[in-house]
Amino acid sequence: MYGAGDVRVEETAEPKILQPTDAIVRIVLSCVCGSDLHAYHGSGTRSGVAAMGHEFLGVVEETGADVAAVRKGDLVVAPFVWADNTCDFCREGLHTSCRHGGSWGVGDVGGGQAEAVRVPQADGTLVKLPVGLDSELLPDLLTLSDVMCTGYHAATKGRVSTDTTVTVIGDGAVGLSAVLSAKLLGARRIILMGRHTARTDLGVEFGATDVVPERGEEGVERVKELTGGDGTHVVLECVGLTPAYDQAFGVVRAGGVVSRVGVPQYQDANVGFGRMFFRNVTLTGGVAPARAYIEELLPKVLDGTIHPGKVFDRTVSLDDVPAGYQAMNDREALKVLVRP
Amino acid sequence: MYGAGDVRVEETAEPKILQPTDAIVRIVLSCVCGSDLHAYHGSGTRSGVAAMGHEFLGVVEETGADVAAVRKGDLVVAPFVWADNTCDFCREGLHTSCRHGGSWGVGDVGGGQAEAVRVPQADGTLVKLPVGLDSELLPDLLTLSDVMCTGYHAATKGRVSTDTTVTVIGDGAVGLSAVLSAKLLGARRIILMGRHTARTDLGVEFGATDVVPERGEEGVERVKELTGGDGTHVVLECVGLTPAYDQAFGVVRAGGVVSRVGVPQYQDANVGFGRMFFRNVTLTGGVAPARAYIEELLPKVLDGTIHPGKVFDRTVSLDDVPAGYQAMNDREALKVLVRP
Repeated sequence: MYGAGDVRVEETAEPKILQPTDAIVRIVLSCVCGSDLHAYHGSGTRSGVAAMGHEFLGVVEETGADVAAVRKGDLVVAPFVWADNTCDFCREGLHTSCRHGGSWGVGDVGGGQAEAVRVPQADGTLVKLPVGLDSELLPDLLTLSDVMCTGYHAATKGRVSTDTTVTVIGDGAVGLSAVLSAKLLGARRIILMGRHTARTDLGVEFGATDVVPERGEEGVERVKELTGGDGTHVVLECVGLTPAYDQAFGVVRAGGVVSRVGVPQYQDANVGFGRMFFRNVTLTGGVAPARAYIEELLPKVLDGTIHPGKVFDRTVSLDDVPAGYQAMNDREALKVLVRP
Repeated sequence: MYGAGDVRVEETAEPKILQPTDAIVRIVLSCVCGSDLHAYHGSGTRSGVAAMGHEFLGVVEETGADVAAVRKGDLVVAPFVWADNTCDFCREGLHTSCRHGGSWGVGDVGGGQAEAVRVPQADGTLVKLPVGLDSELLPDLLTLSDVMCTGYHAATKGRVSTDTTVTVIGDGAVGLSAVLSAKLLGARRIILMGRHTARTDLGVEFGATDVVPERGEEGVERVKELTGGDGTHVVLECVGLTPAYDQAFGVVRAGGVVSRVGVPQYQDANVGFGRMFFRNVTLTGGVAPARAYIEELLPKVLDGTIHPGKVFDRTVSLDDVPAGYQAMNDREALKVLVRP
């Protein structure tokens, strides 16, 4: 990523083992994330040239001397931050704050939209997949890198349960994964706010009980009508823009929770007396520690309980990654799979 | 309260039963709240002339035809909002959002800084106290109206437990009650941020393990030093001003909770990527549903486990209420007891 709208495919040096805890993974499947689009719009936190991609599964090609949990030939999936999986934060399930972890595409760690990548902390980061390269589940399993776990993080932090009603704001891949996660956690009712019919149709397939295409005040009124004027116990905000934030507080029930997983593209927002305080509304969520959820969700993918890979509606080769960004940016594609 | 700095004691009509669910309570003890000072500064949400006081205990003088739970002569305490204690919100413990509740000093309901008051929804609102008028525990029991329950709400919403470390921001009566509450819930460590020695001394008596008098960046650094650079799992923000909000996020550990009970005197604040989102910090708290906690805390006051009434350090008659506001405003008094 050279800058706003400027994605290039370039030949780089083959990744090499630098630390005894490293592995090299040959990438089989990768994809483009909604958050990559923030960089594509020039609104992200990154500056300068960056290797992109933080979602991948692939085959272990080489391991450092201290790597014990995976070995050459293993098919593995990686979460969207690497982590040792042993420090106190990891043990608490907050791998995104790992004391020895970091991000893909930063420093001497490459990105996942590539042919191969160096994986630091390989024992902590990589999860072995008990399927072959010919498995039809590979796209489903790839979602454990980020999008499915991000939706699940929203629902978990929002404390979705069989006692709760839920509104999901956003019909992107994360929003749809949040619907699927709310359904998995037994939500009584799932209202999906989105206006792209192809996407909300998948949302209904994933478990949404109601679809509200209206936005802003009109959308808030519609959700209130559907909920006897109260709003829902939980709101999963899967967009990251101020109007979605405002909408979330408009549709949350008093005493409820707004759980954000859309990367916020704003700093300041209303957290005042009327908005939050008097109504005892909680604001939670954040960057999903995907690694914490993989073991829990993997069996549900393997046994077919969930098919989160349905969010992929286009596949590109590595050479066509720039076109993939463009298609997602133009909302022609929901989420783009990359097959190097 | 006629306006900023203008508190007057006036003769008004005796309160009367207006609804069959009403009771009239002759007030024995009342007090001045830190939040009353917002109105005293002209910064509150109220405008026009208002009857003040939302914390009181007293003797039931008369009851409406439908009142069954209390009767004439009962000594009772009232939470700082009145509520039916039967609607869905009340059953969930969110009496501040009661479908048939409301605030003292609004409309035809008087305030608690008075000789007598009409209590709507008397069965739901009032809690009978099993002590006599000569009990030395009356000031302790009065804190169940608001300040103790507000501190307890902060700690409860922050999910303080024996596994957590806690920072309390603010050495006012709410902050000290929050310290006492954190101690009651078994917090491993309680760092009190405050710089009024007489108050922080009481904080230490209530259970604070460390006192940090520094504020702003310096205070944040000091708390980080005390916690190996991480901050504490929970931060109880008991002030309500932007610097306290900012300080709270400075001292909270990644994955932790900022629980606010100081009434926010701001609307917009930083909830952005670096501040909250990347670190998975939760913002919670709000107006305390005191009624929900009275049954739980009452036995602990009666058996002497807690002495929350120690926050009162001055007593005034009704005529001297304006001087009481002044003393709290000037920080000469921590919390002022009113004996009509």
